[in-house]
Amino acid sequence: LDERDNTFIVETLESVQSADISSLLYEFSSEESKYVLDILDKEVHAEIIRDLDSDTRKAFLKIYTPTEIAGVLNQLNSDDAADILHEVPVKAREEVLALIDADLRLQVVDLLRYEETVAGGLMAKELIKVRQGWTVNQCIEEIRKQAENVDKFYAVYVVDEVDRLIGRVSLKSLVLANAFKSVAEIMEEEEVVSVETYLEDTEVADIMQKYDLESVPVVNVNGQLVGRITIDDVVDVITEQAEEERQIMAGISEDVEEDDSVWRNIRARLPWLIIGILGGLMNAKFMGLFEAELMQVTAIAFFIPLIQATGGNVGIQSASIVVQSLANPSFVVEGLWTRLAKVFLVAMLNGVFLAGIVFGANVLLFTEFELSLTVSIALFSVVLFASFMGTVTPMALNYFGFNPALASGPFITTTNDLLGLTIYFFTVNLLLI
Amino acid sequence: LDERDNTFIVETLESVQSADISSLLYEFSSEESKYVLDILDKEVHAEIIRDLDSDTRKAFLKIYTPTEIAGVLNQLNSDDAADILHEVPVKAREEVLALIDADLRLQVVDLLRYEETVAGGLMAKELIKVRQGWTVNQCIEEIRKQAENVDKFYAVYVVDEVDRLIGRVSLKSLVLANAFKSVAEIMEEEEVVSVETYLEDTEVADIMQKYDLESVPVVNVNGQLVGRITIDDVVDVITEQAEEERQIMAGISEDVEEDDSVWRNIRARLPWLIIGILGGLMNAKFMGLFEAELMQVTAIAFFIPLIQATGGNVGIQSASIVVQSLANPSFVVEGLWTRLAKVFLVAMLNGVFLAGIVFGANVLLFTEFELSLTVSIALFSVVLFASFMGTVTPMALNYFGFNPALASGPFITTTNDLLGLTIYFFTVNLLLI
Repeated sequence: LDERDNTFIVETLESVQSADISSLLYEFSSEESKYVLDILDKEVHAEIIRDLDSDTRKAFLKIYTPTEIAGVLNQLNSDDAADILHEVPVKAREEVLALIDADLRLQVVDLLRYEETVAGGLMAKELIKVRQGWTVNQCIEEIRKQAENVDKFYAVYVVDEVDRLIGRVSLKSLVLANAFKSVAEIMEEEEVVSVETYLEDTEVADIMQKYDLESVPVVNVNGQLVGRITIDDVVDVITEQAEEERQIMAGISEDVEEDDSVWRNIRARLPWLIIGILGGLMNAKFMGLFEAELMQVTAIAFFIPLIQATGGNVGIQSASIVVQSLANPSFVVEGLWTRLAKVFLVAMLNGVFLAGIVFGANVLLFTEFELSLTVSIALFSVVLFASFMGTVTPMALNYFGFNPALASGPFITTTNDLLGLTIYFFTVNLLLI
Repeated sequence: LDERDNTFIVETLESVQSADISSLLYEFSSEESKYVLDILDKEVHAEIIRDLDSDTRKAFLKIYTPTEIAGVLNQLNSDDAADILHEVPVKAREEVLALIDADLRLQVVDLLRYEETVAGGLMAKELIKVRQGWTVNQCIEEIRKQAENVDKFYAVYVVDEVDRLIGRVSLKSLVLANAFKSVAEIMEEEEVVSVETYLEDTEVADIMQKYDLESVPVVNVNGQLVGRITIDDVVDVITEQAEEERQIMAGISEDVEEDDSVWRNIRARLPWLIIGILGGLMNAKFMGLFEAELMQVTAIAFFIPLIQATGGNVGIQSASIVVQSLANPSFVVEGLWTRLAKVFLVAMLNGVFLAGIVFGANVLLFTEFELSLTVSIALFSVVLFASFMGTVTPMALNYFGFNPALASGPFITTTNDLLGLTIYFFTVNLLLI
């Protein structure tokens, strides 16, 4: 690369898939990468930019002129072009829009209206529309016309005279059908599954998963066909959802990756840590109320970590089981009371078992009988309460429209810590002192 | 349903997609559902059984005779049939195999050899194979022959005389090509992406995501085409992976859902709770060593929850950021030392900030100066150590072939609790007493 041996670079990369080239480029600086990209085929260049992750792409776009960005966008589908435009600074955006092809501009401007997290923001405008009365041959003519713009498609969509979606013909039936049959004859009989523009991306993903679809048409409020979403975009949605949940569970408040800046790392992590610290200070204040008891029997303090850790673990387990059920929505079998009764039974049995272990270990190893009994009874109660909290919190969060995974995060653990401490000292006061 | 009004049921369900019927059936008992299924179309019946989740399906299969199971399998693709057979008790399995169609039996027996978590276990045998010398017309003839068996396909695969995969022709190019062109002329120029039978399912998912594929051919060690994997199966793999990670992070040791039996719930949760309990007992034992110090200054105990909770939170955050990076494999930009240096810097800044807050709060609110200072210094050190542990543990787990998400689970939190306590008492000894 240092020798700028262009022919060598082009020849080496010619037989390679664009996705492989883009992994390769992560090892270079943006300037070096741009040098390589500029000498490649325009289409490959555009595909590589499309496949970069958002942060890296932003770094790239900074060293591109508006004309160069427009050149890249012209090679892409409308959905990808719109996604990239979202990352271009607002003042450059207008300039780029003025420079791209007129057809693409119309489509992209339309797509920019939608939030990135709804069906409208996921869809591409490129699709193949046919009329009910057409013959198979006319369809193939239409496909030929559109073939340049639409690089992947699995079906053609049938619309009426005002563009309302009425059906779908799979590519397979087009291949197999007689050229003079009409679209109406080979159209699928079942009602075609479609989504509306404002549907949440996660719901689009659920629908495509449920019906095993590789693409789904998008309609507006009037039932008119306005775009289509392909499965590769939905796979990205599912992956991002999993990442988001992982971050919520770990107490990280914005999308952050290892190679993001130090400042961004701190900003994402500090808020939750501060909540934990505030909880810890409240713990300290609360324990201060029992200073007299603690001075009397110091050994009480020894078991605080045990009580709190168990409460935390039980709470997170319970919450995560509820989150799991909520993520599989087909799964509503039992009523609320049956579910709670079962949670209670599991908690009882877990509690009895754990309290037994602790009691045995304490008597055998080090503690006097009365303290052992107190610790075990407190532990049992903590398991019950933490199970209940862990089950009810995500249900409530979900009911009020929040992400239920929050219940496995640090906010709830902090609350559980305080709860455990309260139960423990209450038991101590009742039985020991 | 109670009135057994068959015509009404059939007519109502006729226009509905099979995926919708299967969600409906979750509300009935297996016997009631079977009654409905038996009066439906055979193909719809089979699709519904296919779409059930594994636990429900096992309950269903118990009330089916081997002949009935065979009838269902005959309607399905080889991969789905093999998956269902995995769930049939071993002694009934042979019986069912003897009853299914001969073609399907050969395919299914072949698929049963593979583990369910590798490409061979995910693939279907149904695909369309053509030869390089064939014309487009011959391909379409072949598709017509196979059309009954293969319900979804996106491309035909080109093989040589010993079945080695040499290329791919998309359905789109088949639709557009002149009927007398040869396959060699319209075959894609780029090398076709394929996977080998023993490749892990998660790696198959990564590859399909990377190249935005809707299906990928599977080859054996000799490069011969043996099957194909479609994106809907991979979407399931990605979803399961996310669920598994959630369970590991929450400390649940086997796949368990809310509606599983009480006993299964307990078995999945108890092992991790016991690890937590053992950690708690070690905490107690360890604090016992400092009984004298605690009797001298009881207030030392007040800050143990604060120290341990912060250590735990920092550790989980760090681990989850590493897990994130490992899940996006294209993402190797910086060397190990640069990464560690950055982790250290973030930890330093977070530590200084948190220690500052705690120091301020302590001085203002309740504690004497020296204890406040000790707590803050210990907190700072705990943040550093927990960041380091949280970063290094998932890397090490990954290196030795374990799931790095284990580092966000209760085992590591328990270790971090002990680490925090050690650092705290070490600081107390050094500065306070």
